[in-house]
Parts: sequence; C-alpha cells; structure tokens
Amino acid sequence: MHDLHLDLTPGVGRRVALENALRQAIRSGALSAGTALPSSRSLAADLGLARGTVVEAYAQLSAEGYLRSRARSGTQVATGPVATAAAPAPPRRDPAPIRIDLRPITADVNGFPRTAWLGALRHALTTAPDTALRYGDSQGDEQLRGALATYLGRSRGVRTTPDRIVVCAGFSHGLSLLCQALARAGATTLAVEDPSLRPSRDTAEHAGLATVGVPIDDRGLRVDELGAVDACLVTPAHQLPLGVSLDAGRRTELLAWAAATSGLVVEDDYDGEFRYDRQPVGAIQGLSPEAVAYVGTVSKSLAPALRLGWLVLPERLVEPVVRLRHRVDRHSPTLDQLALARLITTGQLDRHLRRMRLRYRRRREVVLAALSRIPGITVTGIAAGYHATVLLPPDSSETAVLHALRLAGIAADGLADYRERPGRAGLVIGYGTPPQHSFPAAVESFATILRAAL
Amino acid sequence: MHDLHLDLTPGVGRRVALENALRQAIRSGALSAGTALPSSRSLAADLGLARGTVVEAYAQLSAEGYLRSRARSGTQVATGPVATAAAPAPPRRDPAPIRIDLRPITADVNGFPRTAWLGALRHALTTAPDTALRYGDSQGDEQLRGALATYLGRSRGVRTTPDRIVVCAGFSHGLSLLCQALARAGATTLAVEDPSLRPSRDTAEHAGLATVGVPIDDRGLRVDELGAVDACLVTPAHQLPLGVSLDAGRRTELLAWAAATSGLVVEDDYDGEFRYDRQPVGAIQGLSPEAVAYVGTVSKSLAPALRLGWLVLPERLVEPVVRLRHRVDRHSPTLDQLALARLITTGQLDRHLRRMRLRYRRRREVVLAALSRIPGITVTGIAAGYHATVLLPPDSSETAVLHALRLAGIAADGLADYRERPGRAGLVIGYGTPPQHSFPAAVESFATILRAAL
Repeated sequence: MHDLHLDLTPGVGRRVALENALRQAIRSGALSAGTALPSSRSLAADLGLARGTVVEAYAQLSAEGYLRSRARSGTQVATGPVATAAAPAPPRRDPAPIRIDLRPITADVNGFPRTAWLGALRHALTTAPDTALRYGDSQGDEQLRGALATYLGRSRGVRTTPDRIVVCAGFSHGLSLLCQALARAGATTLAVEDPSLRPSRDTAEHAGLATVGVPIDDRGLRVDELGAVDACLVTPAHQLPLGVSLDAGRRTELLAWAAATSGLVVEDDYDGEFRYDRQPVGAIQGLSPEAVAYVGTVSKSLAPALRLGWLVLPERLVEPVVRLRHRVDRHSPTLDQLALARLITTGQLDRHLRRMRLRYRRRREVVLAALSRIPGITVTGIAAGYHATVLLPPDSSETAVLHALRLAGIAADGLADYRERPGRAGLVIGYGTPPQHSFPAAVESFATILRAAL
Repeated sequence: MHDLHLDLTPGVGRRVALENALRQAIRSGALSAGTALPSSRSLAADLGLARGTVVEAYAQLSAEGYLRSRARSGTQVATGPVATAAAPAPPRRDPAPIRIDLRPITADVNGFPRTAWLGALRHALTTAPDTALRYGDSQGDEQLRGALATYLGRSRGVRTTPDRIVVCAGFSHGLSLLCQALARAGATTLAVEDPSLRPSRDTAEHAGLATVGVPIDDRGLRVDELGAVDACLVTPAHQLPLGVSLDAGRRTELLAWAAATSGLVVEDDYDGEFRYDRQPVGAIQGLSPEAVAYVGTVSKSLAPALRLGWLVLPERLVEPVVRLRHRVDRHSPTLDQLALARLITTGQLDRHLRRMRLRYRRRREVVLAALSRIPGITVTGIAAGYHATVLLPPDSSETAVLHALRLAGIAADGLADYRERPGRAGLVIGYGTPPQHSFPAAVESFATILRAAL
C-alpha cells in the first residue's frame, strides 16, 4: 500500500489525493475485490499523512461503495460492480476426466512424511546461521552434499566425496545442466535407450544434444550398437520402461566403450531405492566414477514437488556444471537442502523408504495377481520401482487398448510413446498414483477393461 | 543399506557373504567412518536373512575393527586406519578475510521472519492436498500467482491477472528464462543501463543475447540513445547503482520506443518495496502491461536463499517462457510457493516489510551522517533500497580507495565494475550485510578509511 500514487500537486488536498489514488487503484484492478487494506494508522505512517486524513478517506470511499469496513476484520475492497482490468483466466482442465490414473512415474505422495519434513524444516530454520539465508553455494549446501555422499555410498554403492556432488532441482534439471555442459564442451550426440522416456530426450535436445536411440534386449542396452556418440544415457538398475537390469557383462562393455572413446555414461538412477527381489543392483557409477555421471532425485523417494536432486560427477565436469547453474538460477533453495540433509542424517529417510518399499511391494502383488488372469500378456519390470510394463499379445492394437481404457476413465501410457523403432505393443502402468484405499478396485477395473479389449 | 552387494554364490555362506560385502563397502569408502548401520532386525528384513546372521556378521566385523557397537547408539562404521576412496576436499575460502562486508545487494537476512516462515510452511504442509506434492504447474502454483497479482497491484501498481504471472527462482532465473525465450523468437540484442550490474549482463549473454550499454543521466536512462535493440533492461524505480528514478517524461519516451519498435521493456524491480522519501515510484509495467516484462524477487524483501521470484509478462510471452521452464527444471518447489502465498495473504509479508523499512531507514541515516563529514564526495541513490553510491572527488583513484579499504578488511564495490563507458570514480556500498549491533562501528570504520584514502 505504501506505493499508492498520490498526486500531491498544489490545489489538491491530501485527503482528496488519497481518495483519487484509491479509487483509481480499485477501478484499474490494481486493488482487487476483497483485498485487505492496511490499518489507517499504518497507511498514514507509510504515506506521511495524518491518521485522520486516512480515516476520512476510508469513510468517504466506504460511502461510495468502493470499500467495506467490518469490525475486527478491518477495511477491505468491496466486491461489486466495479470494473476491473481483466477477468482471471478459467482454470485449465484435462480434455476428459481421468478416474483412475495409472500413468507411471508419479510416486505415491500420500506416503510423504509430512511430519518428518516439517520437523526437518523446523530444525533448519531454528539452527541455521544467518549466512545460510544469503546467496548460497551454486554447487549445493555443504551439509547436504556431505549427507548425500554417505547416503549414496551405503544405499546405492556410489563412490564419491561431497566435492563431486552438485545439488540440482531433480532429474530433468540435472540432465539439462549436464547436457548443456557437454554441448558447450563440443559434444553433439547423446545415445538414449530405445524405448525410453520421451521427456528426457526432449530435455537433452533442448540443451543442445541430438539423441540417438539404441535398442534394449533382455540383458539391457545393446552396447555393441552404440555408434559414434559423445555420451550415453542409461537406466542400469531398472530400465525405464522395460524393467531389465543392465547385466554384469554389459556393464563391463559399457565402461570399456567409455574408456575407449572417452565417452560419458549418464546414469539415471530414478528408483534405485525400491527393489523387491533380493538381488540388489548397485549403481554403475561405483565401478568407474570418472566415466559416469550419476543423476538421482527425491521425486520418486519423497515427492516431485520438492524439486531436489543431485549429480555425482567426474572431476572434469564439476566446475562447468556449477558455473552453468550459477549463471542460470544461482542455486537450490537452502532451507529445503538443509531439511533434506537432516532427513538423511537422522535416519528418517531410511525409515520412510522402508515403509514405502512395503507399500509398493503390496501394490505390486495386487497388480501381479490381477494381471495373472489375463492370457497372452507378459508383465515385465516389476522387480523394482513402481511401474510395470505389460506386453500385449502380438496381434493386438496398443491404440485400441488405450482408447478402451480411456473411455472407461483409466489413463496409462502406451509403449509406443517410449519407442523410436517399432516394437511389440504394450502398456506402461504406474502404481503410485491411485489412493491406497481404492488401489485394489482401480487395478481390478484396469484388468477387466484390458481383458475385454484384447 | 538394502543395496549391499551380497555374493550369494554356492559355497559361500550368507554370513560370510554379508561380512565380505560390508568389508568391501567400508574399504571402498562407500560406507564412511561414523556411518550408522541399520539395526540387525531391519537389515535382516531388508536382505531376507535371519536376524542371527546379521548379529554374527556385525560381531565379527566389530572384532576386526571395521565396526563399533555402542549401547543406545547402535552399530557404526569405525573411524580408524581403514583406507577410503578419497579425502574430502578442503573447504573453499576467500583470498583474504573480510571483516566488514559493505558489498551491495545482500538483504539484512538477520531480519528474516523465521517464525512466520516456519508457520507458513506448517500451514502449507498441514493443509495442502496430496496432489500438491506431485509435479506442479510450470507456470507456478495457482495460489501464489493469485496472491502475487493482488500484492503487486497494491504495493507496486502492477496491472496483471494470475495467468500472466510465471513463478521463477529469483531475478537471474527470470531474466534468463525471458532472454532465452526472446532469443528463440529471433531477438539478438538487449540494451542495458550503463552503469548496471554485471551479473545481469552475464546472464543475458549466457542466454543468447548480446548486451549494449546505454548511458544514464539524472532523469534515468537516455532513451534517445537506444539504438536498434530488441529489448531494454531497466531499473526504473531505483537505478542500480546510481539510484535515480526514471522520470515521467522518460517513462513516456521508453514506452513510445516500445510501441514504435515492438521492443520489450524488461523492468527489474529489485527493491521496489523499500522507499524512504514520500514520493513512491510505481512500476512502469502498470502503464503498459503488454510492452513490459516485470521481474521481481524475494531476495531483497525476504532472503536470497529462498530462490523465489516472479515474472509478470505480456500475453505473447507467457507460453514460451512456461514451456522453457518445463523443459529445464519443471517448476519451483511447491511447498515454498504455498508458504510465500500464505505470508502474503495473511499480511505477514507487509508487517515484515514495515519492520525492515524502519531498520534500513535507520541504517541509511547512520550512513548519511558518517559520510556527511567527508568533503568532496557525493552520495546518491539513497531514497530507496539499501545501497548507496558514493561518487569520489574527480581526481581520486577508485582502485586506490578500494585497495585501502580492502587492506583494512572492508569490502565494497567499485563503480568501474558496473560501467561500460569510463565515468566518475565511485563506490557502491550496501547496508544489509553488517550485523545490527556492529553496523554503526562498521560504517564509522568505512568513513574513516575512505576519508584517509582521498
């Protein structure tokens, strides 16, 4: 309110100037209906007017219908037939209602540890020195990088020190920074898995690298088909979407490729925390830290809305990536970083992950049981994470199945959206989104429609 | 811990496999000294082993010196002569110690409303639906955009609706997004004020626009010297660093330039909330919303560490900027956005700003009093914000003065760092950084050294 434009020209009284300014602000929409005005005392202090002047102006405008005064709640801009600048835009909506959302890649945020996160934020806000509220380290807060180095070491077999970690705003952001840094150093091409997530390819291309799809078989990426590329993006622990792990032989081949060509392996460890069989698959980064850039995120383990992730980089890439980050948006929010560090070091993240692993494991069993009754399909990718890929019978139409599901209000992904080369029809379904109470019914509906559509 | 690499080949017992895996993890540094291990119960559950197997393995490794068990605090990795992967990097430090930091552009974060911010986060965490924890709107949370539309209207005279606002991560990020969008639409040049902040020019150039300096006089930007450029970045309310306001005539000229050339005015309203004289200067955006892109931030009003800001855009720029944001890092953290919305709608931001205005006003008086005793200098830019520009006597050396200050442990900016064209020597000093209790002494030291150096 202190920036009301008072026209204090000779001949216009202060009260009239204030009334004109308020009227104009309300008419133009600058002060919208329902806006609470400051008390007469504080507005008077801000504008250097006598308090009585403000009280009189408020009274006049209330009489004119511009303002409304209420005991206890103060003075507000009245709602009514005052012309405002523009109507707010209508809310955006999906083209048709989705009753059951089985699209993959969204965590079950219903399990987000709200109390623990608030406690971690409280700890950060009550213990952080004032310096933590200034501009921070573009590489990421030191406490968080320290906590991540230990956490990633024990949980994912990542070999690193805090000075090789760059905190970022999730997987896409990490990939974007990395691809920009590579492009600025002369790289032009990034191999990606075929099939793989289209948004990752979009992000890489937006950052200046052309993407080239390389096929997957049941041992993971066909390393022998890697052509002349500068870097290679892989999901070694749990191929997205097919779910295979990159096996030991292929890991060796991939690192040999990196050594022979000075190529960079970019490891997307999107759901490395969730594994249900008893053969955990560690990060390939641990085998060759100077050949692999590891990208992780809290989007799958906590919630996408937090926008926190990390890169673990070969030494040569740390400085270029940090410099880029500094130029574009300085750094990630410090209090959020401190809260995540706290969640890790107190063991609360581990506890949360144990709870969620159990929850996803149960959901997975519901999905497997429902799909086991459908003949002709093959379910893959369910040893980890919270998505499954349903390969359809060879003669079926993916489009027709998706259409039938959509008519029933069920959303899922088609495998064609992930593919560059044609391949067997299939669906990719996630089991993080439907609420806990309705999950079995959601999966039952999906299975019923799918069976009928085949 | 669930991703320990157990070698469960025939002939190797489970306990031995677990011991080998733990030893290997400790030797490689993946489990670093002091790391707390899970309880035997939860590790056994995670790995599908009998609890006794884990207890025995822990006991064996404790006997070997790899682990350390303590009553109540559980089992930890021992500190000691175990070879780890790499030593952490030494902490970075400034080249020489700064006792008194008078560099501008950092807010007095000592005044940050920690309690109110925590309360706003608590409100967000306890009231937000689960959907708020998923991926959010790349344009920014609807509640925050609504709150900002009202707030910017009443406090800065900005005319907008929520659908023209894009939430970003502060001024640099907003400018970067905007310049990238302009560059992709074919723009090549951005006029900037001379003098102005070098980091803003760097950000624009990094985003693909060449910058061209345009001189400032006592009425603000010399609009008549704007050449053929696609856009023009200005600080109309309080020129950074010289402190003049763009006067009414120049505002009209600038908007006429925009209308005649279809050029875009980019308004950096970095400290619009802080004005000490009684002639508030509203945003130029309010005069012509389709010709001006307005950029604001909480870095000056709350704290840079929050990484929140906003763009208020002409309609044609909203979609390209939001698309860019989506490609690069999706969106700003949702809980932080909800907390800021809460701070605005409850009036707590207004109260905080009133407190800070008073505090800066007092600091400004201390600065003015100290500098008034130094002959030959001219102090400008002190009607708003929390920096002052000290123009030095015509024959003095800016470098020599800065050097003398630096030797005394005092950091300030030299005006030459802001200039493209040569001009009068000067210093730019901020009064947000020194702590409240030592502020008068800090300014006294500065004035004493400055006087001696002239």
